[in-house]
Amino acid sequence: MQGGFSTEILQRIEALAAISEDPAWLTRVFLSPEHRRANALVQSWMSEAGMATRSDAVGNMIGRYEGERPGLPALVLGSHLDTVRKAGKYDGMLGVVTAIACVAALHRAERRLPFAVEVIGFADEEGVRFGATMLGSRAVAGTFDSALLDRRDGAGVTMAQALHDFGCDPTVLAGAAMAPRDILAYAELHIEQGPVLEARGLPVGCVTSINGASRFEVDVVGTAGHAGTVPMATRRDALAAAAQCVLAIEQRCRGEADLVGTVGVLQVSPGAINVIPGEIRFAIDLRAPHDAQRRRAEADVLELLAAIGRERGVAIAPRKVHDLPAAACAPWLMAQIDRAIAAEGVAPLRLPSGAGHDGMAMIAVAEICMIFVRCAGGISHNPAEAITAEDAEIAARVLLRFITDFEPKAGP
Amino acid sequence: MQGGFSTEILQRIEALAAISEDPAWLTRVFLSPEHRRANALVQSWMSEAGMATRSDAVGNMIGRYEGERPGLPALVLGSHLDTVRKAGKYDGMLGVVTAIACVAALHRAERRLPFAVEVIGFADEEGVRFGATMLGSRAVAGTFDSALLDRRDGAGVTMAQALHDFGCDPTVLAGAAMAPRDILAYAELHIEQGPVLEARGLPVGCVTSINGASRFEVDVVGTAGHAGTVPMATRRDALAAAAQCVLAIEQRCRGEADLVGTVGVLQVSPGAINVIPGEIRFAIDLRAPHDAQRRRAEADVLELLAAIGRERGVAIAPRKVHDLPAAACAPWLMAQIDRAIAAEGVAPLRLPSGAGHDGMAMIAVAEICMIFVRCAGGISHNPAEAITAEDAEIAARVLLRFITDFEPKAGP
Repeated sequence: MQGGFSTEILQRIEALAAISEDPAWLTRVFLSPEHRRANALVQSWMSEAGMATRSDAVGNMIGRYEGERPGLPALVLGSHLDTVRKAGKYDGMLGVVTAIACVAALHRAERRLPFAVEVIGFADEEGVRFGATMLGSRAVAGTFDSALLDRRDGAGVTMAQALHDFGCDPTVLAGAAMAPRDILAYAELHIEQGPVLEARGLPVGCVTSINGASRFEVDVVGTAGHAGTVPMATRRDALAAAAQCVLAIEQRCRGEADLVGTVGVLQVSPGAINVIPGEIRFAIDLRAPHDAQRRRAEADVLELLAAIGRERGVAIAPRKVHDLPAAACAPWLMAQIDRAIAAEGVAPLRLPSGAGHDGMAMIAVAEICMIFVRCAGGISHNPAEAITAEDAEIAARVLLRFITDFEPKAGP
Repeated sequence: MQGGFSTEILQRIEALAAISEDPAWLTRVFLSPEHRRANALVQSWMSEAGMATRSDAVGNMIGRYEGERPGLPALVLGSHLDTVRKAGKYDGMLGVVTAIACVAALHRAERRLPFAVEVIGFADEEGVRFGATMLGSRAVAGTFDSALLDRRDGAGVTMAQALHDFGCDPTVLAGAAMAPRDILAYAELHIEQGPVLEARGLPVGCVTSINGASRFEVDVVGTAGHAGTVPMATRRDALAAAAQCVLAIEQRCRGEADLVGTVGVLQVSPGAINVIPGEIRFAIDLRAPHDAQRRRAEADVLELLAAIGRERGVAIAPRKVHDLPAAACAPWLMAQIDRAIAAEGVAPLRLPSGAGHDGMAMIAVAEICMIFVRCAGGISHNPAEAITAEDAEIAARVLLRFITDFEPKAGP
């Protein structure tokens, strides 16, 4: 019941990567014809692995491998089958394909566990089509906001219509929700999408938390002026003030492990070579594995910005545009992942997830954990996304060991 | 031979401001129908002030007030009659109108000086129509580059054609040049376009130099990445590097009187809220009254940028796109301006000009000086440009006193 996972996993990754709306790049969005084809392919693999399959009211593809007797609560494995535009082929898909490979190994060995195993290929995590993310896992978690059904895609099609056209009944979406008593835990294997494992020379790691995120838009208003005539001492240069903010944010976040802060957008007005900038708009993205840590960083950053504004006599006005709480992985699950990693001869490393994942939604219905797999250069959301066959193999072995050794949480 | 200048000066400013291609804003460009109308109006005022007038081969309007005998070398006064788009009404025009008012005062008093006085309304200083500046003063200084005659405006009309249509003969442009022996000095009165005089509570000041300028475009190349997944310690954030450059430039220029440095343009790529910026392009504008000072600042800034690049492991590549030497005002002329200012009861203040002026071209044919007039808030190139009647009056008195007390430079 082991060995030789990687060839099949990588072949199946290629097969899924070939299902794209665009022949040049991988793009596969929620409720598209490509979604239907990917679901059918995944369904065939699930059946082959001995699973009973179903597609739910939001288009998730679900396979169930019964335990020692039918109807037992399930260890739920999953990841997503949709992609960003011009995507890599491992983001999401690796977790689904690897989970199926593990169940197939159980099935080949005719092994039944004291719990069921379910594998979900979520219909939407990236949120590309309707601008709302994790639609598949929210439906399973029972937190799908039905107001979203009126959202329209770029072509003007509502989500309700798209569901209908896909063969789903949007009026029974609530039926896609799983009951907490039926789920022992949610475990997801996913590429890291960051450089930590590569830097540490490790193929896999155990995720501690999916970072919470705060986003701010900041308007800086100084005084525009002639770049030649206004002496340095009397300037109220909005760009110089914003530059100081960028560095203050960087310094604050550098000072603390696992906290990250980014200014990814900065626009200069009027934006002429010979004019002192009068107005800047920039955006801050702050993430941390613990919400308390993120709140402290937020408070400090806002204070630093206010001090820069006072010091320079410019108006600096931040407003919060986004707040998503962190989703902490359960310690009892992390301990089991660490054990599975160590058993495969890899030093256990714990690391937070800076990117969002379906666990952020699933945490509403189950305790969660994640296994990260090293990816080349930390590159993701990009056709250059890559992993090695060796890492795919180790990741599958770790997941299989986690499944077979899984011990449900002791009751209260 | 004094008093009551300001009413007439401000009326004439209004009359010129009414000559615009756009009824909502003041815009009057080189060789336009509005240029022709402005020249005709200025010519009538020059004639009324006892001057012989001529329009030269580039469309400058020139008035000559003979001295004690015909044909003496001239003290040349001037400024420009063209405007930027959506201009203020004092930039350029105030110098022409005030110079005419001074000559008119001499004429009314029937006073002849031991030298001639010429007033030039330059045809183009701003360079709006053909993207090349100081065309009027370059023609007078004999430095007009005839290759520019092939340049086309936004409508595809060449400068040669536009000159022809205006009634000028582009083949005799060299004839517009004045001989150095015919010019005793070039003096220009102009609004400051900056906040120094206002901050010092002074109506007028003596310019020491028209600043030289260096411009650089700088490409910063770091590594783009996911704002959530790349730890702070392993980032090569191009925006953070550029922000450090902005502050280093500011600090270097703050450290030295009269030096100014500006980053007016900064573009972020890819420019998404959740992506670490991988590439930045920004522009630097450095100006100083002395070229040696500017060269030192350039060298220091380039070294600071290189150090930031090394420290952060990002590529920072500056390339020079513009270099215009400073035009120093002549000490013997500055001394005479100071005396005229003091004689009008104003504390003499010397200040550099951060903006460019026709003196930068005229210095090829004559020693130069400038009188700056306070403008509200230092605002210029903007319809909000404003001066007070009191300041217009004092400025005219200072210029008249400078003219009547003018002593040509002692011969070698």
